[in-house]
Amino acid sequence: MDLKSKFRHVMDYPVEGIDFIDITTVLQDAQYFRHAVDSMIEKVSDIDFDIVVGTDARGFLFASPIAYRMGKGLALIRKKGKLPYKTVTEEYQLEYGADAMEMHEDAVEPGQKVLMVDDLLATGGTARAGIRLVEKLGGKVTGLIYLIELEYLNGREKINGYRVDSVVQF
Amino acid sequence: MDLKSKFRHVMDYPVEGIDFIDITTVLQDAQYFRHAVDSMIEKVSDIDFDIVVGTDARGFLFASPIAYRMGKGLALIRKKGKLPYKTVTEEYQLEYGADAMEMHEDAVEPGQKVLMVDDLLATGGTARAGIRLVEKLGGKVTGLIYLIELEYLNGREKINGYRVDSVVQF
Repeated sequence: MDLKSKFRHVMDYPVEGIDFIDITTVLQDAQYFRHAVDSMIEKVSDIDFDIVVGTDARGFLFASPIAYRMGKGLALIRKKGKLPYKTVTEEYQLEYGADAMEMHEDAVEPGQKVLMVDDLLATGGTARAGIRLVEKLGGKVTGLIYLIELEYLNGREKINGYRVDSVVQF
Repeated sequence: MDLKSKFRHVMDYPVEGIDFIDITTVLQDAQYFRHAVDSMIEKVSDIDFDIVVGTDARGFLFASPIAYRMGKGLALIRKKGKLPYKTVTEEYQLEYGADAMEMHEDAVEPGQKVLMVDDLLATGGTARAGIRLVEKLGGKVTGLIYLIELEYLNGREKINGYRVDSVVQF
């Protein structure tokens, strides 16, 4: 199943010069969607973790079925202002722009081992901020899994020392 | 398993007077999370549908594992400006405020039967706009499933004539 060619490329979104990889063409196809989730699970099958952390909003699309299938709980990283309870916050740089994200202060318990899930590893800015949030709460990141990795952006360099896996590389 | 008492109530979020039901306490507990998803699946087991439609962002948390588990594709309704490809748009009223949401014009194929999934049925404004988006694309909504229904807001009245199920009622 050729997952890589099933993504749609949208040029100049959200800003000029960006080759945006649209995952919806994969999601909408039942077999490709299942294959994408199963491929992510396969990559992390040897990682010891207690809880999945998913990042708002596309990360939820993969974090949730991975947590469900692997019998784990799911903690959320959300854009600033979206979580109702007491939070910890981190600012981060995007491939295009800057933002802040938050976790509930009880989202991860001290000592819990965390698998972080997102759709895309780009510059690694979101990943690094996510790791900081988890570590602020006393969690230990034992792995990060992405459906897509944009290797030419060298995101792994920003999260050096952590185990990182991806299913499809561009 | 007492799902109803596992939700956290956050008063005066996002605005004064709202009793916000925080689902993260359910998500973070592996057994409650599984039970929540399985309960939604059980409610819709007799509904005939081809594809799941999930609503940005908390709806993704349930739409995705339901689609995955039931072997279906997943189409997205997103906040305006978040989808990269050509879209159709609907404005809607929230319990507090107004917004617009979009689907890719190829998210649902004409004639496809759609199960709509979201975390919460409140006033029904989001639900009605979502149905309109699906119907603009030629899809047929055969069911709507919610983890939580706020019965006192009478959301069902706005989506009269459609099959609506929910797991927990407040």
